[in-house]
Amino acid sequence: MTIAALREQLALALRMLERQGIIDFNGHFSARLPDGRAGLLINAADSVRSAIRPADFIAIDFDGRALEGERTPPMEFHLHAQIYLRRPDVHAVVHTHPRWSTVLTTVGQAWQPVTMQAAVLGEVRTFAKTASINSVPLGAELADFLGGAKAALMRRHGAVSVAGSVEDAFVQAVYLEENAQRQHFALQVGTPEPLTPEECAVIGRNLSRPALLRKVWDYHAAKAADARTETQDD
Amino acid sequence: MTIAALREQLALALRMLERQGIIDFNGHFSARLPDGRAGLLINAADSVRSAIRPADFIAIDFDGRALEGERTPPMEFHLHAQIYLRRPDVHAVVHTHPRWSTVLTTVGQAWQPVTMQAAVLGEVRTFAKTASINSVPLGAELADFLGGAKAALMRRHGAVSVAGSVEDAFVQAVYLEENAQRQHFALQVGTPEPLTPEECAVIGRNLSRPALLRKVWDYHAAKAADARTETQDD
Amino acid sequence: MTIAALREQLALALRMLERQGIIDFNGHFSARLPDGRAGLLINAADSVRSAIRPADFIAIDFDGRALEGERTPPMEFHLHAQIYLRRPDVHAVVHTHPRWSTVLTTVGQAWQPVTMQAAVLGEVRTFAKTASINSVPLGAELADFLGGAKAALMRRHGAVSVAGSVEDAFVQAVYLEENAQRQHFALQVGTPEPLTPEECAVIGRNLSRPALLRKVWDYHAAKAADARTETQDD
Amino acid sequence: MTIAALREQLALALRMLERQGIIDFNGHFSARLPDGRAGLLINAADSVRSAIRPADFIAIDFDGRALEGERTPPMEFHLHAQIYLRRPDVHAVVHTHPRWSTVLTTVGQAWQPVTMQAAVLGEVRTFAKTASINSVPLGAELADFLGGAKAALMRRHGAVSVAGSVEDAFVQAVYLEENAQRQHFALQVGTPEPLTPEECAVIGRNLSRPALLRKVWDYHAAKAADARTETQDD
Repeated sequence: MTIAALREQLALALRMLERQGIIDFNGHFSARLPDGRAGLLINAADSVRSAIRPADFIAIDFDGRALEGERTPPMEFHLHAQIYLRRPDVHAVVHTHPRWSTVLTTVGQAWQPVTMQAAVLGEVRTFAKTASINSVPLGAELADFLGGAKAALMRRHGAVSVAGSVEDAFVQAVYLEENAQRQHFALQVGTPEPLTPEECAVIGRNLSRPALLRKVWDYHAAKAADARTETQDD
Repeated sequence: MTIAALREQLALALRMLERQGIIDFNGHFSARLPDGRAGLLINAADSVRSAIRPADFIAIDFDGRALEGERTPPMEFHLHAQIYLRRPDVHAVVHTHPRWSTVLTTVGQAWQPVTMQAAVLGEVRTFAKTASINSVPLGAELADFLGGAKAALMRRHGAVSVAGSVEDAFVQAVYLEENAQRQHFALQVGTPEPLTPEECAVIGRNLSRPALLRKVWDYHAAKAADARTETQDD
Repeated sequence: MTIAALREQLALALRMLERQGIIDFNGHFSARLPDGRAGLLINAADSVRSAIRPADFIAIDFDGRALEGERTPPMEFHLHAQIYLRRPDVHAVVHTHPRWSTVLTTVGQAWQPVTMQAAVLGEVRTFAKTASINSVPLGAELADFLGGAKAALMRRHGAVSVAGSVEDAFVQAVYLEENAQRQHFALQVGTPEPLTPEECAVIGRNLSRPALLRKVWDYHAAKAADARTETQDD
Repeated sequence: MTIAALREQLALALRMLERQGIIDFNGHFSARLPDGRAGLLINAADSVRSAIRPADFIAIDFDGRALEGERTPPMEFHLHAQIYLRRPDVHAVVHTHPRWSTVLTTVGQAWQPVTMQAAVLGEVRTFAKTASINSVPLGAELADFLGGAKAALMRRHGAVSVAGSVEDAFVQAVYLEENAQRQHFALQVGTPEPLTPEECAVIGRNLSRPALLRKVWDYHAAKAADARTETQDD
C-alpha cells in the first residue's frame, strides 16, 4: 500500500470512529510505515478530530521526530511507538476514548465477552494506571501490559486496539466498545452471562473471517460517505 | 407481487430497520418467492447493510443455491429456509440484532409485554443456544423452537420475526425491540408490571388491525425517505 | 385565529413532538374549532405522523362525525371530545406516547416534579387503566380522572396534556416528558428529591409567564425549521 | 478583541453547547465588555437558543440596563453580573442546563472527577438552593458560593462555568457535563473510583495546556460548521 493510500485509510478510520463516539476531540490512529522506514504515520497533535483529513497524518520515527514536515505528533505517540517496537505483527494501532469501556474501568468491572463479536477479540484486560501515555517508560509499561493481545482498556482513560491492518484495528475498536455497552446495559438490570471460553473459541474462529470483518468496515464507510461525500484532501 | 416490487419492499424494510439500529452491519430480511418456485429472496452475504439496494436481494433455493446470478447468501440463510419449510403461513422472515432485546437475553430476563403494541406479538420466548445459525441442524432447531410463534429472541445474539408479509414482519420486529427497550428501562428503576393475558387478548386484537400495522410502516418509510430520496437501484 | 392558521400550528406542534420522540407512529393533537361550531380539529387516523401536514387535520364534531371531507378521526378521538365537553377552558388537547413518562407508569412510580419546569404543570396523576380510549365511556372516564388538571399519564400507554392554546399544550407535553426523563435518570442512581409544594408554587408562578412558554415553542420551531424548510401544504 | 468578534465567539459557543444538549431553550453565555465599560455582553431574554446569532448578544451594565438597543437581558443576568463584580479574573460566564450534572444534584450525589479531563476543573460544589437567580441577593449568594472556583452545580437547576475567556468557559462546561455523564453511568452499575487529589494535580496540570483546551473548541466548532455553514449575522 502506498503512503497516500494508507493516509486515506487512516483518515477514514478515524472519521468513522468519531461518528460513533469512540473517539472524541482526542484519539489517534497510526500505521507502521509501509516503505521500510522505521516509524509510523499518526495524526498530528493539532489535527481536528471532527474534520480529519489524510494530510493530517504525519510520518515520525519511534522517538517522535518528524520524518517530513513541521507538525508534531500527539504527546501520547509513545503508546504507538512502544507497541510497534515490541510487536512485529502489528501494523496499526488506535487509541480511543470509548465511553462505555471507560465507564466499566471506573467502577472496577472487568470487560467480559457478552456479544458474539467479542469472541473475535480474545482476552481484554485493563491497564491500571490512569495517565496520559506521554513518555517512553509509560509507553513501554503499557506495551508490556498489552503483551500479545489485540486490545486493552486503560483505567478511567480509554482503550487501545492493535492489528495487522488499519481495517482490523478499526473493527476491533468497534467490537470492543459495542461489547462494553452491552455489558453495561446488562449490568444495569442484572448479572450478565458472558460467553464461555468454549463458545468464544468456536464463535471467534467463525467470526474472524476476513470477509466478515471487511463487512463492518464497509458498513461504517457507507454511513460516513452518506454524511459527507468528500473524504480526501484535494 | 412481482419479484421486482418485492425486492424494493425488502430493501426498504431493511433500510428502515438499520435507521432504527435494529439491524447493524449484519441482519437479513427474506421473502418467500412469489412465483411458485421453492425458495426465497434474501440479501446477499456481501451486501452493505447501510447502503442496501433492491438488487442486493438474491433468489436462492432452500439449500442456499443461487437460482440466478453469482452472489452467495449469508451463512445464516438456514434460519430462513428451515422456517419456510415448516411454516406455509410465513412469507417473510427477518433476523435482527436488536440491542435491548439481546441485552435482556444476556441477563436471563424473559421478554414480557410492557407496552400495548407488544400485545400484537403473542408469546415471545428465547432460544437458548448462542450460535450463528449456519447449518441445517441449527436452522431446524431454531425453527422447531419458534413453532407457530411470530417472533423469538436468540440468546446473546438477536431476534427473528416471521409473518405473512414483509410489512408485518417489519412491524413486529419494531414492536419487539421497542417493548424490550421499555422493559429494560423499567427494570432499571423497578419491577415492570406486564400486561395480563386478558389485557393482551383485548389489546392485541384491537391493535392487530391491518390499518394500524400499515401506519407503522408508513411512519418509518416517510422518515427513511426524508433522509434519502432514492431507495431503488437505477 | 383562522382554521387555516390553526391547522398550521397543529401540524407544527405535532411535528415538533415527533422530532423529540414524544409522539411516535401514533399520537394526535387537537384544537377546539375557533369558529363557534361544536367540534374540533384533529389529525386524521391515516395521517403519517412523520410527514404531518396542515391538511391532515380534519374537523369533526364531538361524536366523531366529519364536518367536512371523507377522512376519519383516530379511534381515540373520544379522549379529546370528552375533555372538551367538560372543560370550557381547554382549547387544545394532545395525546402523546412519551417513552420515559410511560416507563414510570409501568413500574408504578408516581410522576414527581424534579425539574424547575415541572412546577408549571401542577399535580400530574396516572390513569390506571391500560386501554385505547376508543369509546365514549372510556373517554368520559379519562376526562373525569383528569378533572381540572393540565396533564395526566396513562398507565403503560401514554400521556395527555390540555391547555388554553396549542402552544401551551405543546410546552406542557415537553415539560412533562423532560421531567419524567430526569426522574428516571435520578431513580437509576438514587432517590430523587422532588420540589416541595412551596418551591413549586414560587417557581411555577415565575416560569408560567407567557414569554417563557413562548420561548420553548420558538426553540423547537427553529429546530424543526432547520431540519425541513417547508412546513405547510401547498 | 473587538465587540463584534466577541459576539461571534459567544454565538458560536452557545450554539456548540446547544448541539450537545448542554443548554436547551434556556441558557446564557456572557463576556465582560472588552472596551473598558463596566458591563457585559449577554444573549437577550428573547433570543432563540436554537437559532442564536451574534446580534442576539446585547451590552448591559451590571444592573441589567441596556447600554444600547432595546432588548432586555434574561432575568438571571444577576448570576453573571455578581460574578463579574467579585472576580476580576473572570471574563466569561456561562449558565447551562446540563442533564447529567443536574440529575446528580437531584439525588444528592456530589460531582466527582471520574474522567481525566475533570482534573482541569478543580473542586466543583453544588449550590443548594433551587431557584432562578433573578435578583441581586440571589446572584450575590451564588457568586459568593462559587468563590474562586471554575464551576459550580445548581441543585435541580443547572451549572455555571467561569473563565478568563469564552473558549475556556466553554471547554469547562463541556468537561463538567461529560464527567457528570460518566459519573452517572458509573453509578448505574457500581461505585465509581474518582481520581485522587494527587492524580488530579498531575493530570490537571498536564491537560490545562492552552493547546489542549483549544482542541476541544476546534473539535466542536468543526462539528457545528458541518451542520450549518453560516454562523454569523449578515
